[in-house]
This record gives sequence, C-alpha cells and structure tokens, in this order.
Amino acid sequence: MFNRFTCFFAFFLFSLFSFGIQKNQKLNFIIVFVDDMGYGDLGVFGNPTISTPSLDKMAYEGQKWTQFYSASSVCTPSRAALLTGRLPVRSGMTGVLFPNSLNGLPSSEFTIAEKLKENKYKTAIVGKWHLGHKKKYLPLNHGFDYYYGIPYSNDMDKINNNNYWSEYERNELDSKSYNVPLIENFDIIERPVDQTTITDRYTKKTIELINEYKDDRFFIFLSHNLPHIPLYASKDFLGKSKRGLYGDVIEEIDHGVGLITEKLKKLNLDKNTIVVFTSDNGPWLVYKNHSGSAGLLRNGKGTTWEGGMRVPAIFWGSNIKPGVIDDIGSTLDIYSTFLSISGIEQEKNMLVDGLDLSKTLFESKESPRKDMFFYKGDELYAARLGNFKLHLKTSDWFKEPKTHDPPLLFNLNNDPSEKFNIAKDNPEKIHEILNLIEHHNSELITGKDRLKDRL
Amino acid sequence: MFNRFTCFFAFFLFSLFSFGIQKNQKLNFIIVFVDDMGYGDLGVFGNPTISTPSLDKMAYEGQKWTQFYSASSVCTPSRAALLTGRLPVRSGMTGVLFPNSLNGLPSSEFTIAEKLKENKYKTAIVGKWHLGHKKKYLPLNHGFDYYYGIPYSNDMDKINNNNYWSEYERNELDSKSYNVPLIENFDIIERPVDQTTITDRYTKKTIELINEYKDDRFFIFLSHNLPHIPLYASKDFLGKSKRGLYGDVIEEIDHGVGLITEKLKKLNLDKNTIVVFTSDNGPWLVYKNHSGSAGLLRNGKGTTWEGGMRVPAIFWGSNIKPGVIDDIGSTLDIYSTFLSISGIEQEKNMLVDGLDLSKTLFESKESPRKDMFFYKGDELYAARLGNFKLHLKTSDWFKEPKTHDPPLLFNLNNDPSEKFNIAKDNPEKIHEILNLIEHHNSELITGKDRLKDRL
Repeated sequence: MFNRFTCFFAFFLFSLFSFGIQKNQKLNFIIVFVDDMGYGDLGVFGNPTISTPSLDKMAYEGQKWTQFYSASSVCTPSRAALLTGRLPVRSGMTGVLFPNSLNGLPSSEFTIAEKLKENKYKTAIVGKWHLGHKKKYLPLNHGFDYYYGIPYSNDMDKINNNNYWSEYERNELDSKSYNVPLIENFDIIERPVDQTTITDRYTKKTIELINEYKDDRFFIFLSHNLPHIPLYASKDFLGKSKRGLYGDVIEEIDHGVGLITEKLKKLNLDKNTIVVFTSDNGPWLVYKNHSGSAGLLRNGKGTTWEGGMRVPAIFWGSNIKPGVIDDIGSTLDIYSTFLSISGIEQEKNMLVDGLDLSKTLFESKESPRKDMFFYKGDELYAARLGNFKLHLKTSDWFKEPKTHDPPLLFNLNNDPSEKFNIAKDNPEKIHEILNLIEHHNSELITGKDRLKDRL
Repeated sequence: MFNRFTCFFAFFLFSLFSFGIQKNQKLNFIIVFVDDMGYGDLGVFGNPTISTPSLDKMAYEGQKWTQFYSASSVCTPSRAALLTGRLPVRSGMTGVLFPNSLNGLPSSEFTIAEKLKENKYKTAIVGKWHLGHKKKYLPLNHGFDYYYGIPYSNDMDKINNNNYWSEYERNELDSKSYNVPLIENFDIIERPVDQTTITDRYTKKTIELINEYKDDRFFIFLSHNLPHIPLYASKDFLGKSKRGLYGDVIEEIDHGVGLITEKLKKLNLDKNTIVVFTSDNGPWLVYKNHSGSAGLLRNGKGTTWEGGMRVPAIFWGSNIKPGVIDDIGSTLDIYSTFLSISGIEQEKNMLVDGLDLSKTLFESKESPRKDMFFYKGDELYAARLGNFKLHLKTSDWFKEPKTHDPPLLFNLNNDPSEKFNIAKDNPEKIHEILNLIEHHNSELITGKDRLKDRL
C-alpha cells in the first residue's frame, strides 16, 4: 500500500514536473536566422570543408531536423512567414522589398515579438529585417523593444554598377560599394555600414542583450545578413576556411553561435532557453562558389524545388530531447510552437498556418505537420502531402516557368533529390494532393499586394 | 626546485604515457566495410531519411573524415588496395572478379591480416572477400585465421535472367534468385545463401569473434555484402526506414555497428580497439532508389568523379581525438596506419602507397596525404594534389570515356561538387599536377593482369 502510494505520488510529481517544463514555463527564445545558406552547408548536414563545430555540437545535443522548410524561396516572404506563422500570400508579402519600396508587413499582422511582448517578454531583433524600412514598418512597430541591424539585403543600395564578379576579381572586400544603412531602433547610425565586421557585431550585440535581459524572459531574433552576397568576413576569419570566402562567412557565424550558447550556459540560461538555428531559403546558386550548396537536394534559391526551400534546422536548449527528426517541420511552425510553450493563445480571428511542434521537441512525438505548400510569389507551384510532393509548375532562378500537365510527383522520403518522377504509377496520390490544393485554394483569403508600391 | 622537478617528472610520465598509447600498444582493429554505400548515406554525412544513430554517435565521439577516398570505384580493386595499402594497378587487381574468374590476389602481396598475424594477432574476415574464390586465393591463404562470408558480390551466380527491376516489381525478396555460396574457412556451408538475414548474421558472427578473441590482440574485417544490389533486410528492419529498402539495409548495418561498439564497451575493449567504418566505392546510381546517394558529390560508382571514390569514413575508439578531419585520407592508408600503431615494419621490398595517419588520429595533426590517384581499371583518369583535381579522362558508368584536352581542373575544397572547371585560369597548377602524374608513371611497375583468366 505504501509502495503503491509512493509510486502514485512519484508519478504525480513527475507529471507536474514534465508538464511544467513544457507549458507555461515562459522559456526564453533565440532564433538565429541566416540568409541564403543551403541545406548542405553545415558539417552535420554533410559539408566536407566548412567547419561548424558549434552547430554540429548543438545538433548533437539538441534536435537536427532534416525535413524542415522555409515558407518561401526568397528573403522577404520567408521572414514574414517566420514571424507571423502565416503563408506570405495571406499577408500580401509575396515578393522581395527594395530600398524604393513604400510598404512593409501590415500592422494587422501579429508577430512572435508582439505576442511575447504582450506577455512581458523583452524582445529584440539584431540583423536583417526586410519587412519594410519606412518608420511605420520597422521592428519597433512590430513588437520589438529594440532593433540593431541592416533593414534589407546587404547587396541593395549599390553605389556603382560593376557586376558582382568584377568587384571580387579586384580581390578587395570594399564594404563601401554598397551604401546600406545600419539602423538602431529608428535611426541610421552608420552608412555605408562596414560589412566586414557585421557578423561579429551582430553576435556581440546579441550577447550584450542576453546579459541585459537575463533576469527577464526574452526573445531575441538574430537575423544575420550573411551569407547573402556580397560576402564579407572579419579579419579573424578571412581566408581561414578551406571552402574559401563563403566558408569563412559560415565559420564566423558558427563561431558566434558557439559564443551565444556558451554565454547561455555561463548564465545558467541554457536550461530555460530554446535556440533555433535555420535559414531563410536555399543557396543562391548563380553566384557559383560564393553561394552555398543544397547538398543532395535539387536546385536552390528562387525555386520551389527542395533545394530552394528545405533548410537546415537545429533546435537546442531547455528540455529538448536529443535526436534527429526526419518528420516535416517549417519556419511557419515557430510562431505557434513558441506561443504554445509560453501558454499564450493565438489570435482568434487570424488564420495561422503554423503548427505546434512542442511535443516533437520535448517528447520526440511525431510532428503534426503533414503538408507543405510551395509558393513562388503569389502562385502555388507545388504541394507536399506526407512523403509525396506534386509540382504543378517549376522554374529555375529567373528562367521561364514550366507548367507540368500531368504534374510531376516525387516520393521525397525515398528520393530526396527529386530525380524519379513517379506520377504515372500513382494517379490516386496525384488526385489526393490535387484535392488538398483545391481545398487550400477554396479557403484562401489573399492579402493585398505589399510590393508593387515603390518610389 | 621541487616544483621544477615535479613538473619535469609529470612531463616525463605524460610523455611515456602518450607515446605508449600511440605506439606498440598493439591495439585491436576492426574495419567495417560496406559495399556501394555513397558519401551522402549516413545522417552525419547529410542524409535526411536514413536513420543512423550509431554511426552518427561514432562520428561524434571519434573522427569523421570528409575527404577520404577508396582506391577504386569498383569492388575488387578497392578491396585489394585496402588490404595491401597498394594501388590496384601494382597488384594487377584492376577490375572485378566474377564467379568464372580463375585468379585472385597474388600470394606475393602482403595483407594487413598477414602482417598482424605474424605479430601474434588473431585475424578474421566476416563477409565479402572478392579477391579470388579459388582455394589458393581465399582469406585463409592471405593471413586470416578464420573466414565466414560470401566470396564475391551478392548479385553474382544469378539463377534466372530476369532483370533486377522486374524481380523487385514482384515485391518478393526471393533470396534464392542468386545462387551465391556462404563459405566458412574453405567450405561452402549454404547455397544459395539466405541473403535476407546475411547482415544480421555477419554482425552476430563479428560479436562472437570479439568474445572469442577478447584476451588476445585481434583484427576483424567485417565486410558487409550490402548495400550492393540485390537489397535485402531482415524482418526487424524490412519496411522500417523512411528511405525505403535501401534505407532498411543501411539502418540494419548501423544497428549492427551499434551492437559491436556496445560489446567493445562492455568488455572494456573500446579503449584499446580502433573501429574504422567506410565504403568500397560510391553509390551505383543506375539502380535508382535502390542505390545510395553521393550527397553533394558528382556522379557515383564506376567513375573517377568524386562521387565514385570519395566515401564516408569514421575512426572511433582508443585515444582517437574527436573531431572532423577535412584533410585527405584514403583506404590505402589503413595498412600503413595499423602497422605503424602496432610498431610493425612494412615489407622493405614492397612499394606501399599508404601513409601513416596515426598522428592525425591521435593528435589531430595535419594528414600526411596530399595527393590521390584516380584509376579506372589500369588507366589513370585523374589525380589530386592539395586542393586541386585534374581530370585527363572522365566517364559515366558503362559510357564511352571522354578525353579532356586540355584537362579539367577543379578546386575540391572550394567546389566539392566539381561544377566549376578552372583550368583556363590555372595553367601552372595543371603543369604541377601533370608533373606529379609523369613522376608517378615513370616509377610505376604494374602487376600482371589478374582478371582476364576465366573458365
């Protein structure tokens, strides 16, 4: 009797404890987002000559997700989706903003920062924003307490019209060729920004903020501008990687991630902080060896092939159960997962595409995500359901799209490189995915286009 | 004074100790060799849907080599090179042996097993031999105390003439379609062998041998017949992998490797046993999703592109310093490395191509290997020196070879996928590698062809 009671009591305590870890713990969150890094660019994702010991270690101590998708194959929409948990087509953020763009992420959208800030989190973004650089669209008007970074891509505001390669052939890392501003909160504090030290400065700023916020709950979005071209590395990393300048850049980012996790450990915050590392889209292959690699995946940035949207993803810290997760996940799910972990309800009247991955993170349960929609701009090119991906249309970067009728079908679990079209033998699977698409389209309310208004 | 003496004494002890670990320790050696597994087929080498927790763990606890080469892109020569440390062209073992072949590895060659056996090691091979199946060429006549396995490829001795796919379309894993024998020492003990359980039986036999040899020094060569086609998995693994049958096979091999390392730990032998895991060549791509993936590398088996000869390699156990090694290494070096670690001298009158990697294994020193020769049969197609690989000729599997004049040049550190030919801008590098080739050719003494004599 005593034993049975002890057992019951132990179980009760255990339940309380394990429930407590997962829910309402108000964990801290850090997202490290990199720009244009491919699926095959980390050691632990198979790169032979880019040395990423910090991220490899995080993947081993935490969870490495091998079928994780960004919600777009280009910058702006990918970021809109990450922060709102909504497909870019819903917010109207379906393409890339330029320095002469007048719009940004609509104020009607709710970002992770906004929801967490309402719940007493300190919120900061360090790095690339790219969701509107007019004052009303800047991070402080989207739920962030603090902003330090370049508001769009680091190749924008080009001063001369040399092409990229002719500049690099001069072998000068002249940061001044790009008149991009560095902004703190609402103010430009440096222009052109010295890009050679930008990765290092972003890391240091993040560590400062961790220190500043350590007694509060916090959310920090470290959104590196690199390895988007033009590539720059600080002098401690320049010329050090076997993989050349692209490798130098990744190794500097990796080093910074290592400093951040060390800092968290030192402050004893690793037990209640989740760090997510992922990329906004695949490698920009037209830049040859200044672009990354999609590893075994097909094609890269700007396409709806796997190489364009499947990205490396690592979840680390807190009580995440170590392992490799080969179920489907998406940057879309980060919003819902963070809110769920913090016990915060999603907005009732806002359709969210994200799903709560917390049971996968903490208990290695099957991921709730079974499908994924692959948009190019505001047009649906492909959809995945379970193992199968159906391509209605495909296109290479800046090439004419091809319509596929009948569509192409690939079993991505068996054929991650999208080599073997199995449409002919699987009409029922095509039918099933076409039904999914029809259902998706029938319920879709698209947002007003936010891109066409320019100076 | 006392302090200085203490320091000196401590240093002396430390030196003795660390030298002792590396030299003359007579460590045990296990090589796990797999057949036709590609560079991209393990989790830790970037595969998304093949789950390999045991090998991932070994790579993390030990050394993962990312630029490691087999010495040939097909079975027989790759194995001859591994066991002798010599390029296949020296032994005349430049192509594949078939059931009607009359020859095998010449008795004039010295194998790792032979050298270790002379030095009181117990030696065994479990699995595929493929260096001659006539009695005089079998493992017991090449330095092994014990043999249990299939003497050549598991697709040989085909009973019917159905093509591979039509058999698989029947969805029957009928092991009896291939009349391959299972040999113990010199005797056929099962024919046709039940291939569905062969991976499991090889693992179990290896564990039995570890147990039997545990009080001696031993060398066990576990040479899996799979994932060479036809693919088979035992019922515990069949249908379990997300990657399909190919994944089932790799996951069963991974599971077996886990049982072996656990057994070593249990017997407290992990501290003085080195386990090497690698593959004989790249994936046999013509078999579509029944072949593996070369990951980000170009092409596969039967070619001198990187995908044909660069293979995953993991070194684990003893005092191996954990980390990722992105220097060059080769299966050719295993012979020299094992002999060096055991304090055994190489044969004086035998030219060995292998280099001693022990300082890289134990101290993370730079690998001594700076070059690699890529043969197809008895013809040199390409050579690597430092970062650069020069292709004089290339060919796809069973396609007409192409001669390249001028040759193709790739910087493999920067461009592992061999996408960007930089020959035009690097005439001096081409010249340097052509000199290396000329020197190599001028000193080369080729062995008598061992392949052409057949029934």
